[in-house]
Amino acid sequence: MTYCVSIATDSGLVFVSDSRTNAGVDVKNTYSKMYGFGVPGERQFTILTSGNLATSQSVISRIKKDLKLEGPNLFNFGHMTDVAEYIGEVSCNAQSKTKAADINVESYFLVGGQIGDQRHSVYLVYPQGNYISTSQDTTYLQIGESKYGKPILDRILSPGVSLETAAMCALVSMDSTIRSNLTVGPPIELSIYEVGSLAQGRYYRFDEDSKYLRRLKRSWDQALKDAFKTLPPVAWSATWDQRQDGDGRQELL
Amino acid sequence: MTYCVSIATDSGLVFVSDSRTNAGVDVKNTYSKMYGFGVPGERQFTILTSGNLATSQSVISRIKKDLKLEGPNLFNFGHMTDVAEYIGEVSCNAQSKTKAADINVESYFLVGGQIGDQRHSVYLVYPQGNYISTSQDTTYLQIGESKYGKPILDRILSPGVSLETAAMCALVSMDSTIRSNLTVGPPIELSIYEVGSLAQGRYYRFDEDSKYLRRLKRSWDQALKDAFKTLPPVAWSATWDQRQDGDGRQELL
Repeated sequence: MTYCVSIATDSGLVFVSDSRTNAGVDVKNTYSKMYGFGVPGERQFTILTSGNLATSQSVISRIKKDLKLEGPNLFNFGHMTDVAEYIGEVSCNAQSKTKAADINVESYFLVGGQIGDQRHSVYLVYPQGNYISTSQDTTYLQIGESKYGKPILDRILSPGVSLETAAMCALVSMDSTIRSNLTVGPPIELSIYEVGSLAQGRYYRFDEDSKYLRRLKRSWDQALKDAFKTLPPVAWSATWDQRQDGDGRQELL
Repeated sequence: MTYCVSIATDSGLVFVSDSRTNAGVDVKNTYSKMYGFGVPGERQFTILTSGNLATSQSVISRIKKDLKLEGPNLFNFGHMTDVAEYIGEVSCNAQSKTKAADINVESYFLVGGQIGDQRHSVYLVYPQGNYISTSQDTTYLQIGESKYGKPILDRILSPGVSLETAAMCALVSMDSTIRSNLTVGPPIELSIYEVGSLAQGRYYRFDEDSKYLRRLKRSWDQALKDAFKTLPPVAWSATWDQRQDGDGRQELL
């Protein structure tokens, strides 16, 4: 499995991905799932992948090959939608080439970036080649094992949050997922793109023994424990209700 | 779907369940999934259900019928394992009675309680009739849509936490699930059993417009936002790394 999340705020884009791939629990490998492409001053893209590793790798290598050809590629598309459309086509071709009746060769892609002065955005490209994008109401998109890490994103993210907060939120979301799911693991990659910079963003790679990740985890666990002390005790609730029947054998409901 | 969680701490038991049942998205109903049974001073049990509603209801009604008969029932079993074993058998019988080739009639049950001076505990009973129990290392068990609400339980719970904290943690876990999943919804039921009391615990029912739940949600959201201010900024990480190749077209990896 995999967990990748990408966030689009007013001030830029955040990308976080894990690096664990597995076929069953006894075939476990480490691959980066984050790829950056760009022409400084003109356009910048980051692509995250999940799903069938062979399909994902074939799509990425095809994207890189196309960059060296005259045809349509990441460096000459006019809009982010063209980029999403293109990745969808490449993905469908890669899947159709694989003869697999009983194996799932589907892959999902998150592609985010900015072209010139157009609005920065993130697209989720489905294995079928269609895609959806972030919006003012939907500031993030996930692929892979997305459930564990979703609540914190829902509670914290909004178009107005800073890139720092969005990045920390994505890392906490990743940490929650890693704790709960064996198939998601470090190294964790983080990329932060500042809107309008059209330059490669800040890129971080956190290994298993990363001091920063350990510190973030400790701080967050402590912060949550402290947060509970600020919550209104259940005892304050007026709805405490006791039901008892005649012969001393009570039932709720 | 459903979300139910039960927590066993040194000081007692906490049970939380939602009340939404659905068959598809356009057949939505409200049923309690929490059932309490007990003989004050002798034994106390709480049962939570998920899965096929017909199976769950048939199991509960069979349990109630048995209470009025001479045979083995909740009021004469000697150990919690007997109770789990019994619910597993009743569940298997209920499923086998249903002729359904293409419908899933499986149900899951959480049963927790205490008999006399024995150790209090919670059991998860699978549709196959087998079961697992809480332990010092595993202080909680979930049934239904369990992923969204798991991280907060993993971060907060330990055998030593107070019943108040465990109850609030379960409610926050429920709130996270309700936010992220349409098939889980209020009213929320909460039951808190104090170890050794052998009396029906505190019982709360929170409706959709519950002032307490709204307040808990607001306080938690605020507490999380504040918590982020205490986290070490990503900028402090030493691993910022920039990769650029010759012709100004850089790639990460």
